[in-house]
Amino acid sequence: MITPGFVAAEDRDAVTAMLRAQLAGLPARSPFYAGLFAVHGVDPAALVSLDDMRKLPFTDKQMLRDSQAAAPPLGLHAGVDMAEVIRVHASTGTTGKPSWVGVTRRDAEAWTEMVARAFMTMGARREDVVLHGAGLTLFVGGLPIRDALERIGCTMIPIGTGASEKAVQALDSLGVTALHATPSYVRYLAEYLRRLGRDPREFGISKIFVGGEPGGGEPAFRRHIEQEWGARVTEGLGNADMAPVLFAEPPGAGGMRFTGGRHVLVELIDPDGGEPVDPEPGVSGELVYTSVDRECCPLIRFRTRDRVLVTGLAEDGAPLIRCVGRTDDMLIVLGVNVFPTAVRDLVQTLHPRTNGVVQIVLPSPGPRVEPPLRVEVEYGEEPGDRERLRHEIEDLIRSRLTVRAAVTLVPPGSIERTEMKSRLTRVSG
Amino acid sequence: MITPGFVAAEDRDAVTAMLRAQLAGLPARSPFYAGLFAVHGVDPAALVSLDDMRKLPFTDKQMLRDSQAAAPPLGLHAGVDMAEVIRVHASTGTTGKPSWVGVTRRDAEAWTEMVARAFMTMGARREDVVLHGAGLTLFVGGLPIRDALERIGCTMIPIGTGASEKAVQALDSLGVTALHATPSYVRYLAEYLRRLGRDPREFGISKIFVGGEPGGGEPAFRRHIEQEWGARVTEGLGNADMAPVLFAEPPGAGGMRFTGGRHVLVELIDPDGGEPVDPEPGVSGELVYTSVDRECCPLIRFRTRDRVLVTGLAEDGAPLIRCVGRTDDMLIVLGVNVFPTAVRDLVQTLHPRTNGVVQIVLPSPGPRVEPPLRVEVEYGEEPGDRERLRHEIEDLIRSRLTVRAAVTLVPPGSIERTEMKSRLTRVSG
Repeated sequence: MITPGFVAAEDRDAVTAMLRAQLAGLPARSPFYAGLFAVHGVDPAALVSLDDMRKLPFTDKQMLRDSQAAAPPLGLHAGVDMAEVIRVHASTGTTGKPSWVGVTRRDAEAWTEMVARAFMTMGARREDVVLHGAGLTLFVGGLPIRDALERIGCTMIPIGTGASEKAVQALDSLGVTALHATPSYVRYLAEYLRRLGRDPREFGISKIFVGGEPGGGEPAFRRHIEQEWGARVTEGLGNADMAPVLFAEPPGAGGMRFTGGRHVLVELIDPDGGEPVDPEPGVSGELVYTSVDRECCPLIRFRTRDRVLVTGLAEDGAPLIRCVGRTDDMLIVLGVNVFPTAVRDLVQTLHPRTNGVVQIVLPSPGPRVEPPLRVEVEYGEEPGDRERLRHEIEDLIRSRLTVRAAVTLVPPGSIERTEMKSRLTRVSG
Repeated sequence: MITPGFVAAEDRDAVTAMLRAQLAGLPARSPFYAGLFAVHGVDPAALVSLDDMRKLPFTDKQMLRDSQAAAPPLGLHAGVDMAEVIRVHASTGTTGKPSWVGVTRRDAEAWTEMVARAFMTMGARREDVVLHGAGLTLFVGGLPIRDALERIGCTMIPIGTGASEKAVQALDSLGVTALHATPSYVRYLAEYLRRLGRDPREFGISKIFVGGEPGGGEPAFRRHIEQEWGARVTEGLGNADMAPVLFAEPPGAGGMRFTGGRHVLVELIDPDGGEPVDPEPGVSGELVYTSVDRECCPLIRFRTRDRVLVTGLAEDGAPLIRCVGRTDDMLIVLGVNVFPTAVRDLVQTLHPRTNGVVQIVLPSPGPRVEPPLRVEVEYGEEPGDRERLRHEIEDLIRSRLTVRAAVTLVPPGSIERTEMKSRLTRVSG
């Protein structure tokens, strides 16, 4: 059964028809799916209702990587010829080698529509002047969000990353009302302003839209950003291979709701067994996406590795979610799952004794880590007794995350900052 | 009389009507123009034909800066409220303080249309895979060109600047056929590839589109780039305050033709007296632009400070031009006008004895310079006798540009590289 709640009742017939049409045509235009369906003995024509989706095999990132290695540049799953592609994005992932995502004219239009709906949901309005502080090159969180903000009619200021002095010039003169960036860059820009002797609150920003990495949903981290800027934070969640933003948080909702309209079907599964999970408040699972009208990179039951928690239900019954972290980043300490973002959020609760910047040092690449978990933490402007602070953090991690940690306090600025996504772990043999 | 040749005969009636309509509405929506017309005793309604344009006053960059200082952020000339603006660009100019350029939805559409026509003129085609290596943030040569390439249907790869390793990954795997960047970055990327032990020719690029600064029209500089990449170079010319690209070079034409369609009227004037100049082959002058349908930043008789030479006429009689340089950059040595780009092009003729990288060292800010003109030149891979090379460059500059020069040879890499626009002069007291 398709996970209920992520597709509106009135959309079921339409998306079922679109999915059937996509599946029917897929084997002919994509050798990847022809092969996959053959291996799994799947007859696309036999799919009658959305509940039949469970008969379709999962796909994952490694399969897309292999597909691109076998048929560069866009892979056996691409579905259209390069001539139909108007833009190429990339997701870099952990290997550093980009995997390419092509977008046709129709795909781009669908993205703009989806992302505009997501930003409207997060609170962006035509009258907003939005400083767009995310990478405007291959990153899917850059150009597609620019398109969406302009579609809404916001005044979009393309700053990108690595240009904080330009961001300050824009803040100083353009009447900026809203900021869009990764949570990492939002914090970085506040630190940058403080170093200039400026107070982030002086600029009168009222809305901060974050995405591109977890962080916006961590309570203490969010509270810190909101206090720094005197602004409300809402967050979005997307996927480089599927769409830049698919879930977005209505202000005050306490979670993100699906905003992908009729373009994408969403399932919640148990990441171990792959069984469907009902999106009831309190349950967690992995998001799985299926496109129904994608031209260049049609994805069927694509496992995102995004682990989410259902935090509640919206008035219309739509599930509200938070991203707990990516399975790729998850650590396993004596059988206990630990997301590095959870460590950061715990440390953030001790601000201003810490400044919230952390890095987990792994003796060897994860996910399995021998205890204690080695955590570097920057102390803050008012650390108080450092030995006591260190013990307090270790106690917090042990009591809340049930793993033993060894904390090292380091001076502010010791841990490398990034204007893109935070590196919450590093491997150091 | 409006400069003939820059507006097609069949467009005259339409643009006259558009200009009249714009002028009629301008005083009411722009205090800048209301004041300007009052000071000059101009009655917009009295303008009947394009030949009457000479009755309108000139505007220039300093007036726009003053207008923004008086009414931030967009200035008294802006013409619409910030709420109508969907994007803000900036031109930094010499002061470092940005001057902002707002774009409404209709303005953005007009830009996309103009830039797409320009890139079609330069040879871009739907089937091209274009590496877009220009700054994708506030620079008008970034996002608007992305929009245009996608409009044409090219496959656009957004690399921006400062990401040469990503450019190489794209070149290695995406079947890139064309490159768009400033001439500075095109040369920089070739040098970068050579440092990696790669040959720029191995990637099979056949088209290079340059703009954003002079250089693409300097014969020796262009020949060098064409040889490095094994590709044809064509160039475009625009203006941050008017439109990203307004002139574009058809392959093999030996000059750029106007490609702004019905959006912009072009005049060629004598930069000293402001009198109109007939665009006959061999004459030079300053470009002056008038918008006829601009919403956010309507410009009337805007003096660009771009000095151009008419190199010939296209088959349909349209003038073909090269940009000689910007008046802002021009040096005056004992009454002789010297464009730094001309110095660079002379030095480039001595490749591979020099590598073509030069910088003019000014004891104090220009334009007036006491001779000798101090020029730093990087020697190349095969400099031969350096003392002889030095004299040869000094002789070349004296004989071709009629100014006395003092050349210092410096090792390759000594002069600071930039991935945006070259800095051909520096002030050193």
